[in-house]
Amino acid sequence: MVGYIARIKKIQAIMREQSTEYLVLAPSSNLFYLTGLKTVADERLQAFLVPAEGKPVMILPEMYREVAENLGQNSFELLTWADGSDPVDLLLPLINKHSAIAAIDERMWAGHFLSVRKAFTGYEFIGASALMRQVRMIKDQNEMNLLEKAGGLTDKVMGEVLMVIQPGISEKELAFFVESKLKEYGAEEISFKPIIASGPNTSSPHHNTGERKLMLGDLVVLDFGGLFQGYCSDMTRTFSLGKASEDVKKIYNAVREGNEAGFQAVQEGISCEKVDEAARKAISRAGYGQHFVHRTGHGIGLDIHEDPFIVLGNQETLKTGMTFSIEPGIYLPGQYGVRIEDIVGLSEKGPVRFNNFSRELIEV
Amino acid sequence: MVGYIARIKKIQAIMREQSTEYLVLAPSSNLFYLTGLKTVADERLQAFLVPAEGKPVMILPEMYREVAENLGQNSFELLTWADGSDPVDLLLPLINKHSAIAAIDERMWAGHFLSVRKAFTGYEFIGASALMRQVRMIKDQNEMNLLEKAGGLTDKVMGEVLMVIQPGISEKELAFFVESKLKEYGAEEISFKPIIASGPNTSSPHHNTGERKLMLGDLVVLDFGGLFQGYCSDMTRTFSLGKASEDVKKIYNAVREGNEAGFQAVQEGISCEKVDEAARKAISRAGYGQHFVHRTGHGIGLDIHEDPFIVLGNQETLKTGMTFSIEPGIYLPGQYGVRIEDIVGLSEKGPVRFNNFSRELIEV
Repeated sequence: MVGYIARIKKIQAIMREQSTEYLVLAPSSNLFYLTGLKTVADERLQAFLVPAEGKPVMILPEMYREVAENLGQNSFELLTWADGSDPVDLLLPLINKHSAIAAIDERMWAGHFLSVRKAFTGYEFIGASALMRQVRMIKDQNEMNLLEKAGGLTDKVMGEVLMVIQPGISEKELAFFVESKLKEYGAEEISFKPIIASGPNTSSPHHNTGERKLMLGDLVVLDFGGLFQGYCSDMTRTFSLGKASEDVKKIYNAVREGNEAGFQAVQEGISCEKVDEAARKAISRAGYGQHFVHRTGHGIGLDIHEDPFIVLGNQETLKTGMTFSIEPGIYLPGQYGVRIEDIVGLSEKGPVRFNNFSRELIEV
Repeated sequence: MVGYIARIKKIQAIMREQSTEYLVLAPSSNLFYLTGLKTVADERLQAFLVPAEGKPVMILPEMYREVAENLGQNSFELLTWADGSDPVDLLLPLINKHSAIAAIDERMWAGHFLSVRKAFTGYEFIGASALMRQVRMIKDQNEMNLLEKAGGLTDKVMGEVLMVIQPGISEKELAFFVESKLKEYGAEEISFKPIIASGPNTSSPHHNTGERKLMLGDLVVLDFGGLFQGYCSDMTRTFSLGKASEDVKKIYNAVREGNEAGFQAVQEGISCEKVDEAARKAISRAGYGQHFVHRTGHGIGLDIHEDPFIVLGNQETLKTGMTFSIEPGIYLPGQYGVRIEDIVGLSEKGPVRFNNFSRELIEV
């Protein structure tokens, strides 16, 4: 059983250290991390108010009462509001009337933030991750296990993809196959909409999976993941439909070397930007530096993208328990692109990959 | 072809009327409505800046350049930023240095809003819907047609559900079936995660679809919808697995009468709260008023929930082109619940329902 009360107390200690009087969370992985509540944000305000001392208060639409009560842990007071009433009226009497610092969930909708702010006259707002990241960035053994299990799902599904990928199948059909298989193998959700890019579409790192049918000679980038007990996986592989050209092989190898160099750089105490630099150098050496247009990676856990980010300028140092992607890519506009992505955790025994599907160039 | 430039000009006219100097949009249906761009929000800032006069500016991560360029309409300037740089630096020189009103997309993440705000020293922020709602609430004929097509999908899928619903199947399995069928019939996406509630779970209006297997004697609430060319559907039906008790029939009929009374109340010029009242009165008459714990409905279009809301206190009057749900329900805590939901549009010929699956009590 997850110790929500202990997690809340940890956050409250950090709040007192940082002189942050209140933390206000929205439906998000922050909220799930602190309470186990998993609801979807919509136009009805849902807010979780954590004071630096004392019991937090959950403010929910009346219709969520049962869901919240069923959490069954006595870690917060529950207040509900009915449609047609103003939830800010519930918040107002809870906020001390002096100017101080409050932290707001970065995922709260700006519209709700505008409402919530009314109860915090004179307060300065900072992002909640200033508090939450310190706790959430370091995964415990249970969290690492769940991330590894989530990674195992993507390995299995990538193997299944090899059985069906062929000229004529569309990107969307492949995406549907991937999603179905992830769920069949035990993912409760996909962790993001699968990116299936084929042929010229591969030159866009975040291609919007479409109707294009795969053709012989295509490169195909598959980037997907699922949730296992709330924890995300995220893996990318690039296949060649038919024989790859020498140019493609050269680019593929450069990306692969970037992936390996990034992984090898991972160790306790190294800065995030140094890991980025290691992957980037390998690709620059091959002459494609300007075509590696994004950061090397992002943290992963309850969110598909979270701290720490493996990016130039991030001097955060890696610590045991951190988990993140290593995903270099090369994108030639109008031509094609290649990306190879793994999830890496820094365990007590050094870096480990949570997914292990082959990183060789596979010609289907 | 959708006239994005004309839509932008319409919004800019409203901005000038309302003395709003800037509109800042995030990835959202607002952005899709004004530009056709459909990206997913994440930790990288994406912002669309519309000044009250002149050409809008789109600020995107470098990796989205191709996607934006492929929109192919010359309706905005594109600025991109690379990982490791600060996108607010792109925004700063674009903002006039005096205090005025700016509108922020309610769906922008609060974290991004905190960043964006730095470029707007002295500005007062309001929600973007103050501008956008005036245009988006009134659907043109093309939009009405798409909503009707989206509604047709849910009718078809509800019919398919009747073929497979039986004791032993789990809520999640039903949800997966619904999702697959929606996509098979042409939905590009689900418009929200299907709510499949069975037995005692039906007493929670927004039950989180789970592992429970259906049993003889259960009520089953199915609430789902799909997207058709960006436009949402949303329908709820409640079935009885086996013979319904007299109590269930009584409650079902009260909800059905509430649904019908709400629909019959729809006409040009009536206020939203009057429609809510009509549905509510029918349910109160049957003695269940206190168990109808949510509003009667919500607007629908590119968003699953948008203006106008059919709720107590909303004096907005209905106009031709408005589209919204009518979805009364009765929920007996710890026992069961019933909801019947249709999407209704106010056409030039009066109210029409976009979905037409039977509203009789079906005993499967």
